[in-house]
Amino acid sequence: MTAVERGGDLSVRRSSKGAPEPVDAEILRARAYLIRVAEPPAPHTGRFVDRVGAVAAADAIRRGDVSSEVARETSARRAADRVDADLAAAADSGARLLVPEDPDWPHWPFACFALAPSDELVPPLALWVRGAGSLGGLTERAVAIVGARNATGYGMHVASDLGSGLAAAGQTVVSGAAIGIDGAAHRGVLATRGSTIAVLACGPDRAYPPSHAALIERVAATGLVVSEYPPGAVPARHRFLVRNRLIAALAAGTVVVEAALRSGAQRTAADARALGTVLMAVPGPVTSTASAGCHELVRRGALLVTSAAEITEATGRLGIDLAAPLPRPERPTDVLDETQLLVHDALPTRAARDIGWLAVEAGLAPDTIRAALVELEHRGFAVHREGRWQRTVPTDAPDSR
Amino acid sequence: MTAVERGGDLSVRRSSKGAPEPVDAEILRARAYLIRVAEPPAPHTGRFVDRVGAVAAADAIRRGDVSSEVARETSARRAADRVDADLAAAADSGARLLVPEDPDWPHWPFACFALAPSDELVPPLALWVRGAGSLGGLTERAVAIVGARNATGYGMHVASDLGSGLAAAGQTVVSGAAIGIDGAAHRGVLATRGSTIAVLACGPDRAYPPSHAALIERVAATGLVVSEYPPGAVPARHRFLVRNRLIAALAAGTVVVEAALRSGAQRTAADARALGTVLMAVPGPVTSTASAGCHELVRRGALLVTSAAEITEATGRLGIDLAAPLPRPERPTDVLDETQLLVHDALPTRAARDIGWLAVEAGLAPDTIRAALVELEHRGFAVHREGRWQRTVPTDAPDSR
Repeated sequence: MTAVERGGDLSVRRSSKGAPEPVDAEILRARAYLIRVAEPPAPHTGRFVDRVGAVAAADAIRRGDVSSEVARETSARRAADRVDADLAAAADSGARLLVPEDPDWPHWPFACFALAPSDELVPPLALWVRGAGSLGGLTERAVAIVGARNATGYGMHVASDLGSGLAAAGQTVVSGAAIGIDGAAHRGVLATRGSTIAVLACGPDRAYPPSHAALIERVAATGLVVSEYPPGAVPARHRFLVRNRLIAALAAGTVVVEAALRSGAQRTAADARALGTVLMAVPGPVTSTASAGCHELVRRGALLVTSAAEITEATGRLGIDLAAPLPRPERPTDVLDETQLLVHDALPTRAARDIGWLAVEAGLAPDTIRAALVELEHRGFAVHREGRWQRTVPTDAPDSR
Repeated sequence: MTAVERGGDLSVRRSSKGAPEPVDAEILRARAYLIRVAEPPAPHTGRFVDRVGAVAAADAIRRGDVSSEVARETSARRAADRVDADLAAAADSGARLLVPEDPDWPHWPFACFALAPSDELVPPLALWVRGAGSLGGLTERAVAIVGARNATGYGMHVASDLGSGLAAAGQTVVSGAAIGIDGAAHRGVLATRGSTIAVLACGPDRAYPPSHAALIERVAATGLVVSEYPPGAVPARHRFLVRNRLIAALAAGTVVVEAALRSGAQRTAADARALGTVLMAVPGPVTSTASAGCHELVRRGALLVTSAAEITEATGRLGIDLAAPLPRPERPTDVLDETQLLVHDALPTRAARDIGWLAVEAGLAPDTIRAALVELEHRGFAVHREGRWQRTVPTDAPDSR
């Protein structure tokens, strides 16, 4: 079996009817070539491919027979045809190339790119994916959690907790496998045996950061590791920034958990906003610089969220994924109306008083007092002896503030 | 000197021209009667007084010659004329009666009551005030800080800090003198020698809570203690709820610092919203129930604030009280555009490489690489030897997330 055949086989997906729908090997090879040649984001190349198709576009780029815009994005690497090597290296590491022609392509999530105002925000030409999950299936209900590398214990706890909660609610959690918040979110999902997607800024066969190699393997075991960089590609600052748009685009909403005022997470947040997905932020102490970026995002319109339920409500199915109302403390006197409360306030706890005294104390007419007392007695708040009334139930201190 | 004359003298205020403008003693006595007879809020009595004037209204109420609505608010206490006793007790404790006919009345802040949708939200018939400050002057630039009694150390720290910061910015801080957030806010102001107003739910001559007696004295020494309850009046739950509307109304905006989902602070927040003033909340850890009410307020539209500067900006003079932009961390590479950053990422740190190599690495055309390198060299990011280039400045790790 050649590397090409292996690459082709690996991209076979099953339709809903159970019949395999292999992507044409020629298309797959063309996309493998394009994604290696054009450093993402490559808006002109993307539009060219959309117009003429992947195979024709790859041929034209190989020959150099393209517009100056496409040439600018492809001329440097067009001669270096590494298709066979990339497909082989991917297959060796268990990765496969997912292309827009594949039914598993996340067409619906990526529809958000059509709204984007910037040439930086374009869909990938293809994606290298590694793992047990199906990208189309996993992104049907997905939320991104991103945040600071130098997170606090608070942030790590919250990210892990939200990851677990979202997984329990059947959501896929998308993140970037970074140290800090990203890692905590992935781990929270895995602890609940949920599905999570790690979008890398290096080749799908590499683990970055190296200390997260085991975590990335665990993500692949049940979910997916995704990258638009070919096998062997190294992470670079530019690639982290470009990668962030994919994290935002693969999810219905992005939650920022701890972020300094300037950070990669802020960039992902900006992408989420530009892509028209739901931007959310988790607050923290105002004394913590780690939360300053989150507070700034809320001040600029991001939704403040405090729980997986609130996130699911904001990103979920209308009228179905509603967060339960938060439990509110209750007092026995909640059943009383304003007038009854006023009379109840006036009732002495030790000595009993008559209605005339209560009228002056509460500032209400005797008839009003009488009606309120009937209700208070009925509900067990007042007792009377020989025409004088007092309280029955000991209540809280008067300072209800 | 009789108690009446003392009461009259105490209400003398000076106009901007320095001439005293004593309020007519008859009006003062009428208001003292009305505020004792009608338990606040008394919307019908208030409208009756607005229509016929305080003196005529008091006379009619004394005779019982009023509508059934006004009678309902006044009949229980109308016979008990305690004007002399109240004015004497107030004078003994250093308090005076401030009435709407006095130029020091906070007409402008109280204009918000005109917007209120509820009969619960009506202005007071008069106010007992005690302290060195002028209510009209102090409320020209005022912010309310309210919050939980059972505050955390975090909340106490933030409330005190905001109090100090607002005082330093020339704002008066209005609060309720309660244990917890209220007390911390007052103390923060006093530590900066600023002005603060405590609105009580009992008579102006009483200190509630008793443990805050010394604090309330310190508030009066430079600011004001304010109450619509007559001398000797005891605090009651109903009065705390009713009092909260005055805290909200005396300030251009209300800041909630820690509040459970149900609390007096939430009631003040609801009043602020209904009165059309600026409602703000300080976030905290989502793991803290003490902040849950604040987060809920933000989710329902309150402005998230993290500093005195942000509060002043939200409540202050347009275009003048702007918060300074938050300091953002900077990197040397901030000056580079996307293409230059891409080339910079591609530049090796150890061995130098030629432009052809860099073109493939960065995925950019050689001409683009060349132009970027000129700029990178000019800015000191790249050096070249014999046609080969490398980085000069060591930069951060590539993971910029």
